[in-house]
Amino acid sequence: MTQTVSLSQGRTYLAIPGPSVMPDAVLQAMHRPSPNIYDGALIDMMPDLTRDLCRVACTNHNVAIYIANGHGTWEAALSNVIAPGETVLAPASGRFTYGWAEMAEGIGAKVQLIDFGTSSTWDFDRIADALRADRNHQIKAVLAVHVDTSSSIRNDIPALRRLLDDLQHPALLMADCIASLGCDRFEMDGWGVDVTVAACQKGLMTPAGIGFVFFNEKAQAKRATMPRVSQYWDWQPRADPDLFYQYFNGTAPTHHLFGLRAALDLIHAEGIEQVWARHERLATAIWAACETWAEGGALHLNVADRAHRSHAVTALRLTEGRGTALRAFTEHQLGLTLGIGLGMEDYDSCFRLGHMGHVNGQMVMAMLGGMETAMAALDIPRGKGALEAAAAVLAA
Amino acid sequence: MTQTVSLSQGRTYLAIPGPSVMPDAVLQAMHRPSPNIYDGALIDMMPDLTRDLCRVACTNHNVAIYIANGHGTWEAALSNVIAPGETVLAPASGRFTYGWAEMAEGIGAKVQLIDFGTSSTWDFDRIADALRADRNHQIKAVLAVHVDTSSSIRNDIPALRRLLDDLQHPALLMADCIASLGCDRFEMDGWGVDVTVAACQKGLMTPAGIGFVFFNEKAQAKRATMPRVSQYWDWQPRADPDLFYQYFNGTAPTHHLFGLRAALDLIHAEGIEQVWARHERLATAIWAACETWAEGGALHLNVADRAHRSHAVTALRLTEGRGTALRAFTEHQLGLTLGIGLGMEDYDSCFRLGHMGHVNGQMVMAMLGGMETAMAALDIPRGKGALEAAAAVLAA
Amino acid sequence: MTQTVSLSQGRTYLAIPGPSVMPDAVLQAMHRPSPNIYDGALIDMMPDLTRDLCRVACTNHNVAIYIANGHGTWEAALSNVIAPGETVLAPASGRFTYGWAEMAEGIGAKVQLIDFGTSSTWDFDRIADALRADRNHQIKAVLAVHVDTSSSIRNDIPALRRLLDDLQHPALLMADCIASLGCDRFEMDGWGVDVTVAACQKGLMTPAGIGFVFFNEKAQAKRATMPRVSQYWDWQPRADPDLFYQYFNGTAPTHHLFGLRAALDLIHAEGIEQVWARHERLATAIWAACETWAEGGALHLNVADRAHRSHAVTALRLTEGRGTALRAFTEHQLGLTLGIGLGMEDYDSCFRLGHMGHVNGQMVMAMLGGMETAMAALDIPRGKGALEAAAAVLAA
Amino acid sequence: MTQTVSLSQGRTYLAIPGPSVMPDAVLQAMHRPSPNIYDGALIDMMPDLTRDLCRVACTNHNVAIYIANGHGTWEAALSNVIAPGETVLAPASGRFTYGWAEMAEGIGAKVQLIDFGTSSTWDFDRIADALRADRNHQIKAVLAVHVDTSSSIRNDIPALRRLLDDLQHPALLMADCIASLGCDRFEMDGWGVDVTVAACQKGLMTPAGIGFVFFNEKAQAKRATMPRVSQYWDWQPRADPDLFYQYFNGTAPTHHLFGLRAALDLIHAEGIEQVWARHERLATAIWAACETWAEGGALHLNVADRAHRSHAVTALRLTEGRGTALRAFTEHQLGLTLGIGLGMEDYDSCFRLGHMGHVNGQMVMAMLGGMETAMAALDIPRGKGALEAAAAVLAA
Repeated sequence: MTQTVSLSQGRTYLAIPGPSVMPDAVLQAMHRPSPNIYDGALIDMMPDLTRDLCRVACTNHNVAIYIANGHGTWEAALSNVIAPGETVLAPASGRFTYGWAEMAEGIGAKVQLIDFGTSSTWDFDRIADALRADRNHQIKAVLAVHVDTSSSIRNDIPALRRLLDDLQHPALLMADCIASLGCDRFEMDGWGVDVTVAACQKGLMTPAGIGFVFFNEKAQAKRATMPRVSQYWDWQPRADPDLFYQYFNGTAPTHHLFGLRAALDLIHAEGIEQVWARHERLATAIWAACETWAEGGALHLNVADRAHRSHAVTALRLTEGRGTALRAFTEHQLGLTLGIGLGMEDYDSCFRLGHMGHVNGQMVMAMLGGMETAMAALDIPRGKGALEAAAAVLAA
Repeated sequence: MTQTVSLSQGRTYLAIPGPSVMPDAVLQAMHRPSPNIYDGALIDMMPDLTRDLCRVACTNHNVAIYIANGHGTWEAALSNVIAPGETVLAPASGRFTYGWAEMAEGIGAKVQLIDFGTSSTWDFDRIADALRADRNHQIKAVLAVHVDTSSSIRNDIPALRRLLDDLQHPALLMADCIASLGCDRFEMDGWGVDVTVAACQKGLMTPAGIGFVFFNEKAQAKRATMPRVSQYWDWQPRADPDLFYQYFNGTAPTHHLFGLRAALDLIHAEGIEQVWARHERLATAIWAACETWAEGGALHLNVADRAHRSHAVTALRLTEGRGTALRAFTEHQLGLTLGIGLGMEDYDSCFRLGHMGHVNGQMVMAMLGGMETAMAALDIPRGKGALEAAAAVLAA
Repeated sequence: MTQTVSLSQGRTYLAIPGPSVMPDAVLQAMHRPSPNIYDGALIDMMPDLTRDLCRVACTNHNVAIYIANGHGTWEAALSNVIAPGETVLAPASGRFTYGWAEMAEGIGAKVQLIDFGTSSTWDFDRIADALRADRNHQIKAVLAVHVDTSSSIRNDIPALRRLLDDLQHPALLMADCIASLGCDRFEMDGWGVDVTVAACQKGLMTPAGIGFVFFNEKAQAKRATMPRVSQYWDWQPRADPDLFYQYFNGTAPTHHLFGLRAALDLIHAEGIEQVWARHERLATAIWAACETWAEGGALHLNVADRAHRSHAVTALRLTEGRGTALRAFTEHQLGLTLGIGLGMEDYDSCFRLGHMGHVNGQMVMAMLGGMETAMAALDIPRGKGALEAAAAVLAA
Repeated sequence: MTQTVSLSQGRTYLAIPGPSVMPDAVLQAMHRPSPNIYDGALIDMMPDLTRDLCRVACTNHNVAIYIANGHGTWEAALSNVIAPGETVLAPASGRFTYGWAEMAEGIGAKVQLIDFGTSSTWDFDRIADALRADRNHQIKAVLAVHVDTSSSIRNDIPALRRLLDDLQHPALLMADCIASLGCDRFEMDGWGVDVTVAACQKGLMTPAGIGFVFFNEKAQAKRATMPRVSQYWDWQPRADPDLFYQYFNGTAPTHHLFGLRAALDLIHAEGIEQVWARHERLATAIWAACETWAEGGALHLNVADRAHRSHAVTALRLTEGRGTALRAFTEHQLGLTLGIGLGMEDYDSCFRLGHMGHVNGQMVMAMLGGMETAMAALDIPRGKGALEAAAAVLAA
């Protein structure tokens, strides 16, 4: 037995921040012949499906389902409420706000972006300044990324709502919940969010390929003033169709709908409050391990304050780099794939753990056990007892 | 044994004009864990995938893959080459030209539509008139539906190319091959098509959810003049990406790509010429049966001239209606689902047969045998020997 | 378009007399991780599974499930009730009685075999003679094949019971229902059958790999007198286990049990009487076509009398041979696989159609349409209107 | 967040000593229509399949494949070489030798059993005494369990061979490798084993349902002297068939063969030496953790000597019991199922870890992390640093 023994042959574990691990029930539901798209089970399942989808976002309003990825839903949402020449405000705490902002520019919007770096949540004073300065209410929407997948920062959406209310600013509050829906607590109606965008491949545990835009009456009122909305992105017929094909502006994403149905069944069987609590506990265990390792000085969590960390993804930084080697070891030697760093200055000094959707205690211990092993193999200094610290949280 | 015996329990056969029957190899390829989207097999497979996709369309130019349905690719293609206020010419021989035209209006284009009814192919004299009248070349593109799924008309694309050339009209020739790609002969480069749109769920035998826009240098040149192109629809980074995520403007349609790979393997193992020949022979057998039944006077083919019939779909008309009852019988009593009529005046007097993609001799005989049975059950007058006529074609 | 066009690419149809076409629900149920075999869903499902299995055989008595094929259940059944040196009577109307008889010799039994050829059902006079001659009741069991898969003869089990009763012969009545269970009417308790053997891959629509022995109290009483029963074949702990592993004498056939569960759900959702009626109607349609073709003189049904034909399989004979070429054409040109002749004198002059389990109207028309096509291609003389005759039966 | 948060929703991990975790490739290979059993791919694949199966057992001799579980292969092997009244010697180091011995009695053999308890390997002096006492060579076979799944003891097969040779005793050496094949090093020919039995659901990573008997010329010679061999168990036609159906004495286990093919591909792609080395390293990591926990006094490994521990399964004992509670916690709170104790005196004080077949570094860390968590939750005393000790082994 020498060091050249490979220990990777076995079930692989993709622990990146999306796509997440797909439940067997979802993949099975998608392994079926194409259904009739004019009559039968597929058509009949839509009312319950949209209702149960809205329940995940805690809204009683509307949802439009798009055959598109998360970037597509960014454009879809914007296309319904922002006309060329209008302005959006984008407070950025990671790469994805930039992405959404570029999408806005692509449809002709003006973007006012405030950058809070890649390790910090929003500074509400600066946002307030920007809103106060907008006396003529040129800002038609605030693009608020709830959880930024690149930085793992979780922003305070209810506080942003209160700020808008306090300042009596009429801008729409648009939330990107792509990384957080079905993981971190999110209550669209309760928090006063007007438009929510999400996708299926993270907390919703369905292979990438469909996305969602939830919207309320205020957003709908703004849409009614639009000079023109692209047919494909128009949410109106999708949310309230006369004929089945209007749900999707054409052919339905047949297999994804069956997969999503299975995923929603899992979520609601568990209960959304319990889903959030599970993600919180699992994240807490991961933090306990990482904070222990951090005592060694070589690794630390990107977000210092637990209150601003997502429960779905954890970005880590390595003082001396070697993130690439660490990820290579876990993947090729242990069968565990960790996420690359994204949007950080130094690629090799960052990596991310995905813990979203179909994730439980044994998976978290596998992920952390894999990190411990890789750090041992690479001789990265680290505090002792990290795995036991995580176990203690899970055991609590 | 009475009439109440149901004979439907068994393998069902969805013989509608899309989605088509999915090969086991495709569904199996999609039954897999989510892959890493930053490294590994998924990334590595893209160059061959796009090349093999282009081979199906017989083009050496570019392809952009969209997470979208066929309607989405209509909008995608238009968004790259038609600016608000520009004009497109749309010669219609069925419902889907209207759909594409509406999409064009949705992005601000002016549409000049020529309607040729639902049973006739284009009249090139009328198209020529329209092009000649456009002395200032306001028409920037001709939206040419190759096969209209609703009417089953197959239009003559090469003749349209010749007409444009003869008139020295610079409009782009944009072809909708959603229903024909991988079924009816189509040679993008050879026929001088500038932009081709297609989707995956018909001849490409992959569950609905992705679509394709192929484009050549002329189309690319037009795009270069566009004041603005939406980020999601922009074909430039998709066709020539620096980073993997640019192929799809965000998260890749992971499972669909593996499914498409399997489908392309089937197509190229068979050979595209042979794929076309198979569809032609199968269609000819279907026509032989239908023409024989037509001798009874109650049923006839929507397209009178064989030269203008698609090899992928066949629209039929019933003199006395009862299409709904006929389809109900085949579905509930025999396990065979036929397609509804679409875009016709009288819903009950039309229906359609899909014979696209993963379809062989025994399936065609099942489809025709089911029709014979249903007509017998409903006592619809029909010529004798229809099935034997079809068998004779298949046996030839 | 020439004769070299292949029309086989598409969904293949395996129309042999077992294994039959597997329902998607069965294959899906088997696509799952291995379950715990000491606790949980697998253990909990057994009481309902064995009950529902008994309902298919119309018995309130016992069932033992074996990881074995049909041949294994032959040996299993015999091993519980026939000691070395004891005699069994085997009335043969096809190859499989010979097979079962050889199995009996393999465990040391003496076999008294009466051969009725390959196209005739039992002659009860000859069986009566044999039983009357057995004054000392050396014959401990009669091995009665209900449907012989090779000849497609269906024997009259209730009449055999009446004969045994009339003659007051105490031999066990053992029925082989491998080809008939879930297809042809069979009522174990009502017909006075003591032991029934069956397997999963025909009417029970589950991939080959498990078999069943049903037995009543009379059979159980005979077992109690056995000097020794092999542990693996012993039906006692299997039918009445104290611990889960005793159901299967060791590790359970985990995935097959989930598949069987799905198959039983299909059967009981449809209703066993309706399942039988469906098979009868479909068989009648097949006969109508074959009898019409037979008018051409080149092909005829192996069993002349409809009353003795199975509803699950049909053996056909070709006066001039060419069965091999016919099957090759349907398989390679149309995607339809027919069954070879088995146990007949001349291999090339026989073939068989399987129509068992998951089979409906459109499949039967595919099978018959494929035959018509192949006979046309091979220029085999045949009566006209065969497919229409079949359609008329299905339409009735 | 309270203790009532369940952390089990996610991918479950079945870490029992068989059935093991099935690779996706195996389950996918089994998700297919039934194949033709008279012609085509299934028939063609058999020569390579049996060759590659023999390569796993390191033999150039013969293999018979049975539709049966491991218990079935016990009976199959015995039925070919042990006649009623003949004697077998069974040195027991766990429950499964008793099982095999009972199987031998079931076919009429006399069994001479030597019990070495549940925590010790064989004492060769006592075996030597028994063989020396057998002056007339009544003992026809020694039933040697290589790895006893209940105790996790690994016995020294080569040493047993040397003993037989030294004593010039002609008894067959029959090895049960059900738990060890494809996990622990085993070289049938090199070690002088005459008959090897194995099953598919452990190291061979295929859903339970088929088993294997490998045999050499010496065993074949003994079979030739048998007065009678059951048809189903007869290995002769299975190992050297004239017709395909003889491989399986009837219908083939179609789907299992495709699954096994995929599993063998995985094994040989990795290389059998590397497969063994991987299991050894993973087992060593598990031992390192368990030995560390053992310092707490509450838990210890059943087998004291590393040299006698299997690399496929680890039996553990708890001084104060609570094994049931521990397993319940890992299963219901973490999604990790551990194996029950088997054949031990006190059910609650034993449990087992399965680490066979498709198992890699991240899985081992999940299993150990789950144990650490459960012991923390149950407040079971344990040494510190167990997971780090395991990680150090994996990192080496």
